Amino acid sequence: MRPSGRQISDMRPISIETGVTKHAEGSCLIKCGDTHVLCTASIEDRPPPFLRNTGQGWVTAEYGMLPRATNTRTRREAASGKQSGRTQEIQRLIGRSLRAGIDRLALGERQITVDCDVIQADGGTRCASITGGWVALRLAVNKLLKAGLVTSDPILDHVAAVSCGIYAGQPVLDLDYAEDSEAGTDGNFILTGHGRLIEVQMSAEGATFSREEMNQLLDLAEAGTAQLIEAQKAAI
Amino acid sequence: MRPSGRQISDMRPISIETGVTKHAEGSCLIKCGDTHVLCTASIEDRPPPFLRNTGQGWVTAEYGMLPRATNTRTRREAASGKQSGRTQEIQRLIGRSLRAGIDRLALGERQITVDCDVIQADGGTRCASITGGWVALRLAVNKLLKAGLVTSDPILDHVAAVSCGIYAGQPVLDLDYAEDSEAGTDGNFILTGHGRLIEVQMSAEGATFSREEMNQLLDLAEAGTAQLIEAQKAAI
Amino acid sequence: MRPSGRQISDMRPISIETGVTKHAEGSCLIKCGDTHVLCTASIEDRPPPFLRNTGQGWVTAEYGMLPRATNTRTRREAASGKQSGRTQEIQRLIGRSLRAGIDRLALGERQITVDCDVIQADGGTRCASITGGWVALRLAVNKLLKAGLVTSDPILDHVAAVSCGIYAGQPVLDLDYAEDSEAGTDGNFILTGHGRLIEVQMSAEGATFSREEMNQLLDLAEAGTAQLIEAQKAAI
Amino acid sequence: MRPSGRQISDMRPISIETGVTKHAEGSCLIKCGDTHVLCTASIEDRPPPFLRNTGQGWVTAEYGMLPRATNTRTRREAASGKQSGRTQEIQRLIGRSLRAGIDRLALGERQITVDCDVIQADGGTRCASITGGWVALRLAVNKLLKAGLVTSDPILDHVAAVSCGIYAGQPVLDLDYAEDSEAGTDGNFILTGHGRLIEVQMSAEGATFSREEMNQLLDLAEAGTAQLIEAQKAAI
Amino acid sequence: MRPSGRQISDMRPISIETGVTKHAEGSCLIKCGDTHVLCTASIEDRPPPFLRNTGQGWVTAEYGMLPRATNTRTRREAASGKQSGRTQEIQRLIGRSLRAGIDRLALGERQITVDCDVIQADGGTRCASITGGWVALRLAVNKLLKAGLVTSDPILDHVAAVSCGIYAGQPVLDLDYAEDSEAGTDGNFILTGHGRLIEVQMSAEGATFSREEMNQLLDLAEAGTAQLIEAQKAAI
Amino acid sequence: MRPSGRQISDMRPISIETGVTKHAEGSCLIKCGDTHVLCTASIEDRPPPFLRNTGQGWVTAEYGMLPRATNTRTRREAASGKQSGRTQEIQRLIGRSLRAGIDRLALGERQITVDCDVIQADGGTRCASITGGWVALRLAVNKLLKAGLVTSDPILDHVAAVSCGIYAGQPVLDLDYAEDSEAGTDGNFILTGHGRLIEVQMSAEGATFSREEMNQLLDLAEAGTAQLIEAQKAAI
Repeated sequence: MRPSGRQISDMRPISIETGVTKHAEGSCLIKCGDTHVLCTASIEDRPPPFLRNTGQGWVTAEYGMLPRATNTRTRREAASGKQSGRTQEIQRLIGRSLRAGIDRLALGERQITVDCDVIQADGGTRCASITGGWVALRLAVNKLLKAGLVTSDPILDHVAAVSCGIYAGQPVLDLDYAEDSEAGTDGNFILTGHGRLIEVQMSAEGATFSREEMNQLLDLAEAGTAQLIEAQKAAI
Repeated sequence: MRPSGRQISDMRPISIETGVTKHAEGSCLIKCGDTHVLCTASIEDRPPPFLRNTGQGWVTAEYGMLPRATNTRTRREAASGKQSGRTQEIQRLIGRSLRAGIDRLALGERQITVDCDVIQADGGTRCASITGGWVALRLAVNKLLKAGLVTSDPILDHVAAVSCGIYAGQPVLDLDYAEDSEAGTDGNFILTGHGRLIEVQMSAEGATFSREEMNQLLDLAEAGTAQLIEAQKAAI
Repeated sequence: MRPSGRQISDMRPISIETGVTKHAEGSCLIKCGDTHVLCTASIEDRPPPFLRNTGQGWVTAEYGMLPRATNTRTRREAASGKQSGRTQEIQRLIGRSLRAGIDRLALGERQITVDCDVIQADGGTRCASITGGWVALRLAVNKLLKAGLVTSDPILDHVAAVSCGIYAGQPVLDLDYAEDSEAGTDGNFILTGHGRLIEVQMSAEGATFSREEMNQLLDLAEAGTAQLIEAQKAAI
Repeated sequence: MRPSGRQISDMRPISIETGVTKHAEGSCLIKCGDTHVLCTASIEDRPPPFLRNTGQGWVTAEYGMLPRATNTRTRREAASGKQSGRTQEIQRLIGRSLRAGIDRLALGERQITVDCDVIQADGGTRCASITGGWVALRLAVNKLLKAGLVTSDPILDHVAAVSCGIYAGQPVLDLDYAEDSEAGTDGNFILTGHGRLIEVQMSAEGATFSREEMNQLLDLAEAGTAQLIEAQKAAI
Repeated sequence: MRPSGRQISDMRPISIETGVTKHAEGSCLIKCGDTHVLCTASIEDRPPPFLRNTGQGWVTAEYGMLPRATNTRTRREAASGKQSGRTQEIQRLIGRSLRAGIDRLALGERQITVDCDVIQADGGTRCASITGGWVALRLAVNKLLKAGLVTSDPILDHVAAVSCGIYAGQPVLDLDYAEDSEAGTDGNFILTGHGRLIEVQMSAEGATFSREEMNQLLDLAEAGTAQLIEAQKAAI
Repeated sequence: MRPSGRQISDMRPISIETGVTKHAEGSCLIKCGDTHVLCTASIEDRPPPFLRNTGQGWVTAEYGMLPRATNTRTRREAASGKQSGRTQEIQRLIGRSLRAGIDRLALGERQITVDCDVIQADGGTRCASITGGWVALRLAVNKLLKAGLVTSDPILDHVAAVSCGIYAGQPVLDLDYAEDSEAGTDGNFILTGHGRLIEVQMSAEGATFSREEMNQLLDLAEAGTAQLIEAQKAAI
């Protein structure tokens, strides 16, 4: 019934390759099926201005899409002179989610910027960015620990994200583009390694949904993020 | 325990005054406590380009904040040359929510733009914008019906929104600014007149949350939006 | 002969309601007929950079129009990415006019920003902004005086503005939109409480004008601003 | 008493050289003392969109300042990404003034753009732009007449502009930069060849002014523009 | 003597992997040592407006750099709101170079956009973009030929580019970043498969150069581009 | 054979008038045939931030074109909100070329900005800007020397530029617009007073070129820049 032939609770194949660029303090290329995102984490010695002299650090994120990551070419945001509302919404979400898994006092007065650039898109790019972004962040923090610049691990827990939705009347896990563009309701679920919730975003443009459906999607998301966290563990 | 002295499940006083500007096809000034939003609905005879010759209409929204709606003056977005990511995120949410309550074929090839301008802010401005925006939309559609330009009512149901969050460890309804800025977890809940869910957005920056807490917030939100819908009914 | 039935030297009804927002140091809602402008004055402790260490303060103004303040919806300037030439011209005029009534040394090294946001437009919005902006400024300065932050009153005099023009060949006072869009010559006149001139702007796009006509318009403006100043006195 | 040693009612030397660029349909280099402005008029066969099929034409103006036209280098507006409020205000004034001297029906459905670029500035650049811009416009219209593209002369009258102000307590004609930066009140006066008024802009930032002073400035302006119009006649 | 230990006329290892994204009509990942560029070619059915009804097509290029392609993070151009002068200069060069190898009439009225996105930078990114961009273009044109949409091959010849410079007083081939940042003179050389010149750009910021040195660099460039063209042939 | 009737190796008449604006530290109006460029050099006491405390100075350039410098009016860059890629490319070239003729340590910690504004264009505007810009720079540096602010002359040599190209199959010197728009290959050559090369930019959009042709163009350029340098010597 799913265009890909997957079962309702099947994730797409997950692959996380680390150390893919020589410059970044942390990096990985995450593939969730045909969605490929390059994630890098860059450490800066200074926190943003609003945190000076607070002892706290910051984690922020930026998101981009190569023009031909999509089925038809999308205009380059640098050429159109601004980031779209969608891009800004996504990068705010990534940053917020990653910060929820960080002890900012333990990080100290520095900033880590996680860049998530979509090389190829097939649905779920913001979720892949969060899951892969966490790996890049983990690796960058490992460098700080190794160098003795940070003494207590500021990473509180894993952070992973998956999208679920109601496709053809049925709750399904890990929407690809074909499903995403047809789903009545879809949602993004960001969870920790211990299954706590960081962010839940469910949205209906055509068909409204019930609390029961919401709970079914959450059940799927819990199972999906558990698999993503296994993949994170294997990668680092 | 709440700064305002309210009980956990108390809404702030709601007031919706309609017909507040002479030019707009529909308008209201909604007050949720000290949060005041002016909502207008403007009808245009043509749909956006991507809907030409589809028989369908569109509802979209824009959101703004007067510079001194806030405790300290905020820079005017027109002067800074762009809408912030937060503004874009909010206006996309308002538009998506209102469209979920509309039959776009019944609306026909026209566009209704709902402008939500915050005159005074005290938390929950995006929720007040949705609740008040729906009233402005309802009034504008009434005009179309009365003029015979639309024959079957395109409004499917009421749409109302409320924010809830975990403040001082306790789930509370209808956060004001004092609570919002301290809440570990907060969420926006958009529901229909029949209690169906349109959008759920829950987010934790400091403290993650459990499914049980999420369900408590949803219980509060169901009760809160029911009261908002009563106020909508009284206003129109 | 005037579309509104007014006599040549009739002002529209004036109403000035103060204290309309809880955050601003000074605020009012001014109504000149169907033109409604919300004016707020915000005090900042620091002067603009070019006045540091001069002992002088500054008064500046910003002007905006809600999208549906007008008969047909106007594009939101924040969305189009810049303030129009018209907007900039108006806010420069408001700031210049208000500064003409201020002793900047007495004000001391601080800045007061007067925001004038048009809620509903029916001609004469820049004049209403000046007249109402002065009230907001007066109230904010009163706060400084009361708090002892300023010891000698920096307000030198009232400032009020009215538009006059030649409509259907006849000089008339306080143009509304129907007149404004048809007037051959129109002008804005900004005067003090003692009837001194601060700014005179007369402009002919279609029909040029004589010095005699100019003097007739000035006579009307003197009478009109006197009434506006009475309304200011009543309001504060 | 004037820094330049001029009498109160002395204009600076005026020179208007025509035909200074080979491409433009009309052009001149106007020098009012040390203020030098290059004015070109460019004819386009189509009117702006809002005049299509109305039989009417349009005259518009743009204004610029070379970065080192001023005493210290000014940032290039093309580099800073936008025209300042001052620039926009000036070019709106130039366009409005020139249109007041044109019969737009006689011009027919075409647009003439008058570019005024300040090569060297010493006060009064907007006035020199109007006076020189009119010459460029006149020459371009002559070309249309000669080519038979326009049969009845659309130029109704000369248009010229001069600034006057109250310097050291005394009304003076044709302010240079040294006077302009010290004047309590200054004004721009745009008149026709027959002495009719097109635009009067008087403004006081420091010292307010009386109607009597206003009349003195107007007397000076009438005398000054008469001399400018003689120079225009000599040039064409 | 070279930081990398290479001989004066040694190229870095070249690798060109094709078909790296599933959406683009042509794509490759080119690696010139540690410089990695992802090149995609996107076909659009319509030519740019200035070529409508001329029978001719167009090839254009865009260039970008991921923020952490560089040693320290570079600000994202989409976030800063514009493409830098350097970016625009590079993408104009890529487009011009690729067009020099195309018969635009044979291509017909369509446009091919070549996007070159630098994943990792170590000097010579614009040259790698041209060499890799040609491969993506070749593959996209092959698709058009296979589909019968184009009947005669519009590709006239290979196009490849290499940078050479005078490093430590010595002409060297294929500068890496360590050399590039120290070179007194450096140049980019774009040649065809038959060794004809398309573009020569030599530039001295510190040390000027002689015609003899220029000829030495050209000799190196001829040898280097010959190797790049072999790599192109092997890849397709 | 050349549209202007010139011989293959004929330059257009060159004229360099110095001291053309009263404000700039150095200035000239250079005319290369019908290409007229106003060049000014402005001294600032502070170097750009990246050179603070290095003892070195900087020379930078900006380039602009008056809207009607061209045959048909070009849109004003200040109005369109950004400098085109072409403008940025040109001003980067001018700055780079002038810096190649400067000893930045001898200049000391200051910045000289050379503004090149094209009053009338007929091909070769960037070359005229470099040749004229050098004269303005020379004059400004003379002022520093005379004032004793700089003790050892930071100007190392003359810098001059000329364009050559292959027009109708024939290498020709100093392209005018009629030739430039038809040339298969064209190039810009920037040389010192001693005939050393600073920058060579050759480009083929339609027809590729051989090394022999490149050498012929260089021969022409050497002869042409020698004449330009004579004109520079005569002017200062």
